[in-house]
This record gives sequence, C-alpha cells and structure tokens, in this order.
Amino acid sequence: MDRATPTAEFALIERIRARAGKRDDVLLGIGDDAAILRPPAGMELAISCDTLVAGRHFPDDTAPADIGWKALAVNLSDLAAMGAQPAWATLALTLPEPDSDWLDGFLDGFCELAEAHGVALVGGDTTRGPLSVTLTVHGLLPAGTALRRDGAGVNEDIWVTGTVGDAAGGLRQWQGGGLQSAKLRYRLDRPTPRVDIGLALRDLASAAIDLSDGLAADLGHVLARSGVGAQLDLGRLPTSRTLAEHFPDDATRWALQLAGGDDYELCFTAPAAQALAIERALASCEVGATVVGRITRDAGLELLQPDGERFELARAGYDQFAAMLP
Amino acid sequence: MDRATPTAEFALIERIRARAGKRDDVLLGIGDDAAILRPPAGMELAISCDTLVAGRHFPDDTAPADIGWKALAVNLSDLAAMGAQPAWATLALTLPEPDSDWLDGFLDGFCELAEAHGVALVGGDTTRGPLSVTLTVHGLLPAGTALRRDGAGVNEDIWVTGTVGDAAGGLRQWQGGGLQSAKLRYRLDRPTPRVDIGLALRDLASAAIDLSDGLAADLGHVLARSGVGAQLDLGRLPTSRTLAEHFPDDATRWALQLAGGDDYELCFTAPAAQALAIERALASCEVGATVVGRITRDAGLELLQPDGERFELARAGYDQFAAMLP
Repeated sequence: MDRATPTAEFALIERIRARAGKRDDVLLGIGDDAAILRPPAGMELAISCDTLVAGRHFPDDTAPADIGWKALAVNLSDLAAMGAQPAWATLALTLPEPDSDWLDGFLDGFCELAEAHGVALVGGDTTRGPLSVTLTVHGLLPAGTALRRDGAGVNEDIWVTGTVGDAAGGLRQWQGGGLQSAKLRYRLDRPTPRVDIGLALRDLASAAIDLSDGLAADLGHVLARSGVGAQLDLGRLPTSRTLAEHFPDDATRWALQLAGGDDYELCFTAPAAQALAIERALASCEVGATVVGRITRDAGLELLQPDGERFELARAGYDQFAAMLP
Repeated sequence: MDRATPTAEFALIERIRARAGKRDDVLLGIGDDAAILRPPAGMELAISCDTLVAGRHFPDDTAPADIGWKALAVNLSDLAAMGAQPAWATLALTLPEPDSDWLDGFLDGFCELAEAHGVALVGGDTTRGPLSVTLTVHGLLPAGTALRRDGAGVNEDIWVTGTVGDAAGGLRQWQGGGLQSAKLRYRLDRPTPRVDIGLALRDLASAAIDLSDGLAADLGHVLARSGVGAQLDLGRLPTSRTLAEHFPDDATRWALQLAGGDDYELCFTAPAAQALAIERALASCEVGATVVGRITRDAGLELLQPDGERFELARAGYDQFAAMLP
C-alpha cells in the first residue's frame, strides 16, 4: 500500500519522532508497537505519570513551548523527589486539530528540558480531542536508594528548596487581571525540576516530596505516610524578593506559599546532624535549601507565625476536582 | 494537617489503589511521587502508550467496564505484538466529574483483564475534563527477542490470528442504528489481546504488528519498515460465521476486514518452512492463525479476489484525525 500521502496523525508522529532524542539504552524507539529499552543491571526503575489539561493546569494563554516545558517539568519533578535520574518518557497528546505549528512550539519547550536531562521520548499517542498532555516518565536509581514519603522521623528538620509561593503569586495575578510580574509568571510557566538536588539527597534525606499542590498539602502526605506531625515556622519560609514586593501582606503571602501549588520545589526531612552535609551536597546545585520547621510526634501540622501565634489556613491545597483556574 | 476529609481526587485515587494488584517486583506502588520497580536481570523492557477518547475510540453508549477492559486490552495488544510479557501499567484518567460509580465499573473491566495477565497498576493521575483514558504499559522480554516490524522477508508467509472484521462490523451496525449483532459488538467492546500468541511467536515470526487500524494499514507499516510488498488472498481472510451472515456481500465484508480497525488480532510474517512449527506453537493458544498472503519484493499491497481479479480499497485504515465515530 502506498503511504506516500501520510495521514494527519502519522505526520504529527513523524514530527515528534524526529526530535525524540537518543540514548544508548533505547534499542528501539518511536515507530513500532512498543519501545524496547535496556535497564542497566542493579538499578531500580522509578515511574511517574501526570496529566495537564488546558485551562486547569495552565492558563489558557500559555505559550505552546511553555506547555511542553511544564508537562515534562512536573513529571521530572516527581522523579527528582524520588532521587531518580531521568531516562525515558512517553507522550500522549490530545489536540483539537492536527496543528503542526502548535506541535513544533510544544516540542521546542519539551525538547529543551528533555535535552538538559538526557531524556529520550520513546513512545506515545496522538488523538483528537480537547487539549491535554499526559506524560509517563521513567528514571533509574541504585537499588534501595529511593527517597520515599514514609521515612520522616520525629525531631528531624523539614527543608524546602529554592523559594516557594512564586508560581501561586503569578497565578493569582493572572486571575486578578491586573499588574503581572513577569518573574512570577515565569515561575508558573517554567518550573525547574530539582533533579540535581534529588540525586544529591539520596543518602542524606529521610523522606522527600515535590511541591505540586502546595507546601501544606504535600508535606501533609509525608506526615500521613510517616505517621508523624510537624511545626512550620512561617517566618523561615524561603521567599523571593519579587513575591515579597508584590504580596507585602504576611497572611496573603503565607497562604500563597502554603496552599498555592506549582512551585515544584522539593520538601524533604533529615536528622539535624545531617544539616552541614546537606548544605555541602547542595552547594553545587542551582538553588539551596532552607530549614522551615521540624517533625513532631503529635499528628497535625502546626503553622507558627514569627510572634509565636498560630496561623490558620483556609484551604490546604490544590484539588483537581475543585476548580482553581476559572 | 487533618486529612480525615479527603478531597475528591484523593478519594478516587484510593479506590484505584485498593484494586491495583500486587507483584513481587513492585517495591513501591501507588501513593508516592513515583512507583519503584525492579526489572529482572537480563530482560529488556517494552513500553507502549495509548489514549482512548470517548466518542472517538468507543461509542458513547459503551459501558464503563467495557471502557476499562478495552483501554488495557489495546495496550496489552501492543506488548503482544512485540512478544513481551505484560508487567506494569500507569493510568491517566480524565473524568468530567469525580463519579465513583463510573470508576468502580471502569475498574471492574480493567482489573478483570489485568488479573488475567498479572499486570499491576503502579501509578497514575486523575484530572477533570472530557472523558479520556491514557495507559502506559510495560512488558518484559529476554534480550534480543522482540518481534519488530522491520523483519519481514521476501516470499515469507503473512499470517493473521483469530478472525478479522468483527469489530468493524459491530461498529458499522451501531453507526447504522439498525439490527445489531451482540457477538460483533462484543468483539468491538471486549477485544482479546493475543499475549499468549505473541510469547509463542518469539522465535518463530520474522515481524509482527497488532491490528488496531485495519489489516491494510497495519500490514502497510510492516511493509514500509521492512522495505517489501505483499499480496493478500481475500478468499483466505479468516472470517467468523457471524460476520459472514451479517455482511454477505464480499466487497462490503472485505472492506470491513481490510480497513476496519479494532480487531486487535496479530498479523505476523514467517518463512514458509516455519508453518508447521507455528501451528504447533499456537495449538495451546485461545485462537489459531491463518496464512493470508505472502511478502513480495515489489513494494505495494496487492489485494487478490478468489477469481484472481484485483480488489481496490477505498480507504486504507483508521486515521485519528479523520472522524470515524460521529
């Protein structure tokens, strides 16, 4: 049969395949019924899967390149939180129409981040429907080294990387329709997965999670899985100068930092005796980390203001089935 | 933080997690940032990803259990076509609302097939939006044994498993709105991935593909990748009695068998000298296989009627970006 006139789907797949990236352990990539990969001996495999839906996980005016970047970033962030080295991804792309310009923009952002982390795109599917992107990412890590959510111990330090609240601040400004900070919007559109930090923490952290739904909700998962509680010192939350300038009111800013999602920083726990080793291990990473509280024996999350008063949070975090974006 | 009142998304995830299945090689399943898996030494990994969108990949009146079954079946079919043993899956589910009854039905069908093949659900994501299901499946196979699309050799036999055209016949009847055969509709809703046949063919077939888009289009991929052509004898196409009864006109039936998708049978090639070994290897499988043609040196797909006349096919196969379902 003559396939000289490829159908729309095959034309899209060819565009993706041309930019899929190469790795020695990819024996067969896009173009067969399945990809064939060779996991290295003695390594465990970390697998994570996340979907981004237009108007729900990113504002409708988000550039295709930013969607491509962010779709991969949020998935690599899950691998970072396990201490895994990213390796392969599959991409399921649902598009309203076979728009090759849109796809090229998407791939620009996706491939920029994929190349930075040596990720090969090994398979996928394109279908017609409302815009949505599902990625499944695969990482590798030495046996027994995964950073899990269930290892936090009483009296350990709670750390947060980089600064938190910027992405939520950017979203809040976009929703308000007024003045928007380009720096905050950039944090919303182009999150940086903390892969290097996850790798550096493998032998140092007792538990880790990435901040996708907000510090309160995500730390809550660690506490629930570890059977412990926590105190957070709000005065120690790492805060960018931009966020502090645009949101000078403490309560408003703390709410963004605690309940706003999309930061994709890491939150991790470690015994206090590891503090210096952690500072050293992270010295060569893109951002550092800050101690923001401690693990407690009693369940629950206590939020302490600088004056010692307790802070009450109206909403814990992002829920997919409650509308955050309009 | 008190999570005693879980949000809608977490409630759905808990329902999925409770029925995820267990495997010794799943060190950490649903509930952390990523699943942690231990691939066995010396094995290669096969990965495939497929999306099903409501109204496009299944009729709108399809039962949730059938959607769950089919979503896994079409993905396991890709692993079958590589000769891989299914192992793990991730599930990305986009639902219009957090409907636990719908989810339970979906999981009934999904888990029935997953248990039959020892597949563990190791991760996923739930989001709100128009109904769509994306699965990424992972299979294992001994190094170097994958059944690829590019191995078909000149003069080899072309085989097809089971019978073809039933699913397309069921879809055609549903679209017509008249008399519908329950048997044909069942083939459309509950395809059987030919995993056992794929495993049996590892050392026997030179190339293989599963029939998702129709025999003409899918065989076309094998021909293109192998740099060969083919002749098909339409009189030898394996045909169920039900299909023959409901579609007695040869040209109509051949068109369904050649251009209709959703059969999820395997099409494979092998040297004629392997015919007896193939019959023997498939004797214990659920269905057998039939020789329907031969690989030719000249490119192109020639369709021969029983009287020796050539048959012209109006449309080669299913294109995601052309509307097949209304």
